[in-house]
Amino acid sequence: MLLRSPSQSLSDQLAARFATHIRDHLLAPGTRLPSVRKCAEQHGVSPSTVVAAYDQLLAQGLVEASRNRGFFVRDRTLRSPRSAALERGEAPPKPVLTSATRPYGTTISATTLMRGMFSYQDDKPQPGVGMLPPSWIATDPLVTSLRKVSSSAALREASVRYGDPTGDAGLRRVLAARLGDLGISAGSDQIITTVGATNALDIISRTLLKPGDTVMVEEPGWPVEFTRLAALGVRMLAVPRRSDGPDLEVMARYCQAHAGTPAAPRLFVCVSVLHNPTGCSITPANAHQLLQMAEQYDFHIAEDDCYGHLAPAHATRLTQLDGLRRTVYVGGFAKILAPNWRIGFLAAPPALMEPLLDTKLLSTLTTPSLLERALAHCIEQGLLRRHAQLIRTRLDAARSRCVKLALAHGCTLVAEPAGMFGWVDTGVDTDQLAMRMLDDGYLLAPGAVFYAERRPSTLMRINFATTQDAQFWTKFAKVRDVMLG
Amino acid sequence: MLLRSPSQSLSDQLAARFATHIRDHLLAPGTRLPSVRKCAEQHGVSPSTVVAAYDQLLAQGLVEASRNRGFFVRDRTLRSPRSAALERGEAPPKPVLTSATRPYGTTISATTLMRGMFSYQDDKPQPGVGMLPPSWIATDPLVTSLRKVSSSAALREASVRYGDPTGDAGLRRVLAARLGDLGISAGSDQIITTVGATNALDIISRTLLKPGDTVMVEEPGWPVEFTRLAALGVRMLAVPRRSDGPDLEVMARYCQAHAGTPAAPRLFVCVSVLHNPTGCSITPANAHQLLQMAEQYDFHIAEDDCYGHLAPAHATRLTQLDGLRRTVYVGGFAKILAPNWRIGFLAAPPALMEPLLDTKLLSTLTTPSLLERALAHCIEQGLLRRHAQLIRTRLDAARSRCVKLALAHGCTLVAEPAGMFGWVDTGVDTDQLAMRMLDDGYLLAPGAVFYAERRPSTLMRINFATTQDAQFWTKFAKVRDVMLG
Repeated sequence: MLLRSPSQSLSDQLAARFATHIRDHLLAPGTRLPSVRKCAEQHGVSPSTVVAAYDQLLAQGLVEASRNRGFFVRDRTLRSPRSAALERGEAPPKPVLTSATRPYGTTISATTLMRGMFSYQDDKPQPGVGMLPPSWIATDPLVTSLRKVSSSAALREASVRYGDPTGDAGLRRVLAARLGDLGISAGSDQIITTVGATNALDIISRTLLKPGDTVMVEEPGWPVEFTRLAALGVRMLAVPRRSDGPDLEVMARYCQAHAGTPAAPRLFVCVSVLHNPTGCSITPANAHQLLQMAEQYDFHIAEDDCYGHLAPAHATRLTQLDGLRRTVYVGGFAKILAPNWRIGFLAAPPALMEPLLDTKLLSTLTTPSLLERALAHCIEQGLLRRHAQLIRTRLDAARSRCVKLALAHGCTLVAEPAGMFGWVDTGVDTDQLAMRMLDDGYLLAPGAVFYAERRPSTLMRINFATTQDAQFWTKFAKVRDVMLG
Repeated sequence: MLLRSPSQSLSDQLAARFATHIRDHLLAPGTRLPSVRKCAEQHGVSPSTVVAAYDQLLAQGLVEASRNRGFFVRDRTLRSPRSAALERGEAPPKPVLTSATRPYGTTISATTLMRGMFSYQDDKPQPGVGMLPPSWIATDPLVTSLRKVSSSAALREASVRYGDPTGDAGLRRVLAARLGDLGISAGSDQIITTVGATNALDIISRTLLKPGDTVMVEEPGWPVEFTRLAALGVRMLAVPRRSDGPDLEVMARYCQAHAGTPAAPRLFVCVSVLHNPTGCSITPANAHQLLQMAEQYDFHIAEDDCYGHLAPAHATRLTQLDGLRRTVYVGGFAKILAPNWRIGFLAAPPALMEPLLDTKLLSTLTTPSLLERALAHCIEQGLLRRHAQLIRTRLDAARSRCVKLALAHGCTLVAEPAGMFGWVDTGVDTDQLAMRMLDDGYLLAPGAVFYAERRPSTLMRINFATTQDAQFWTKFAKVRDVMLG
């Protein structure tokens, strides 16, 4: 809401608000600003105020005007050699990153969502972010553990050499034990530590796929995974995710169609437990059949278990059934403990250890063992386990409250609520909804971004931990009502 | 030297020695063991002792016998889906990693060299490693700085959020100031922190190159760079490195030949200062002409300055002349301070910041800001500068000693000695030499690995800091004399 203030005119305030959105990448290059009439309506100001604000943005080089079509966010990147080559009429190169080069006038992209996540502060609930509120994270275990490993001698040992390329031996032992608790039998020599789960997935896809190869992904699914795979130049086949796991009939059709050809899928990337964005977990029956299919059609499965700490202990993992024969397990701690320590890991069949390790060496050489040792201490002393229990209890309560609010404000839940995310039908186009709510400072995660081929959607993903605020839901219902006319 | 011992037979000792080499990857799969006669000679044992030792290795599954051709190190990786596909007669996939799939019976590969580096201990001089002896690294600055940033509140701030995707703002400010000292003018918003310089180079190549693109590399050069680029599926053109910089005539020929075609080089990767392995630094004239060529033929240059801390302040950088227009600067701290903190960075033209940042996001999301803050403190307080001065002085002394020893033992220096590495002509095939010296526990860096297309070489790279030991040189001279007959 803009308020008359002695120090700043309404048009200054409006311009500043847009400028912040543009600089924070919440408004992507090419996005069209609302029409002058509409913007005036939305902010309760006169059209001339809006015109003055848009002129300011124009002057600052943040937007550009297109004759009769309105104002658009400017692409502030300069001309690269590649774009110069394009202008010389050379063959257009493949987009390096789909998110950066998407051809449609969308509002919130995968990278926007990620950057929103990074700038996330506790002071305002952000339904679209994919992490727990920082205030939920207990600092004591981190402090204790870090102190433990940073005595002068220990610090020296963890700093002045490159360290074991597979990762700190102590942490790998502790991780092997944790996998054992989940029923996954892996030696510590089957584990490689990584810079977060993201890096583990990157290492796996770079090792198992070459440009032109085919990979199966879940849809809806995590957009960053789609973007990364697109950047690697591989072909994605989208497998619908159902409440019991991936749609096996669709998968079988893909496999049959391409069996014995170079287009046969080589890898399936799967969040089996507390799937993002639906919150569903794979059933034992689905997991069993999926593994049989992997055997028959000779592909690997990367099981991304980064929400595993939030799941009940008995949840079924593909790697548990398979015994790490065709599956590679991916774990991390960003969703439960310390996002910025950037520690993840993978556990792989012995046959894949050498090539996976080579990929790690080529991309980061080793990973910082100081933090790995601190995390090992944190897990060994039971600090992580106790913290995770508290978080699960707190998240259960948040989920109940949030579901009630969502239902009370006209949403329906598409999947049984579990874990961190709710997959919610709003009844209106969530791209548009997200755009309108952004102006009030709320970052939403519209359904469209969770599809490999972006498509309009009335769904959105909400974070149960950050969407318990009645004020948000009141605003949401108002905007929704306006959209429904 | 094998010694008769009551607890272990000579054949047991011999088998154990080979087994260790194989398990440590110092003997790569496919490597042929010495003939029984030769091995017996080398170790002063009877041929039957060798036969018994080889039989043990056979039983342990570490080697395999090939009729009439001798014993070869076995590839212990199991069959992957990919190799199964190969056996079904499908088109052979491109090698993912050249080092892992090289077709010749070489001895020491790039990854072997890297792994040797990781297992490097202070107790024995290792001429082949690419880092300073751990004992040279002062721990006090690390302890002080880490303590400074790990108070409870600071730790919380650096842990519970993902952090700024470009890296810790404080460190980026400090790095911008350091670049300023080198005459490179870059704002802190032109800097992205990475997981070491390796990760920076990986991000740059993934952003600027797509599979099939052409990249120019220096030869001789850092083999890990060749392996990474091969894994990305790009085409490498080798530019001879001369004492004054890259061979510009060869470069010009490449550029002219492919100008205006999709095969035109898009990137040149260059260690301009204290080049690895020759130790040479680029002259201002060469740098100027190189940049003109980049302008004319529209390619980028990645300037890897990871040895920069060891160079005199007045050394010419391409980025300094260019003002970060076509150049991307890469820096790191592994060669001077804390290899395992894994902190590197890149400084790039504004136009490249967005796509480079996207690649970082997709590969590691963010980097651990706790260590970045500690490093910032270390630099800000002048601790790094003082440490670097001491290291340079110590390295100067080591270099003098080492050069004298090398010359006294029949070597010639191919390039003016500077920085950490000497590029030395031994007069004998260094692949064979390295193999023989390995048996005495010395890891050499044979010249062959520094070529994009491996070729026999009488050169080797020595590390001045770790090759001052007279005992090594005596042994070296003996082996060399035997080889010269």
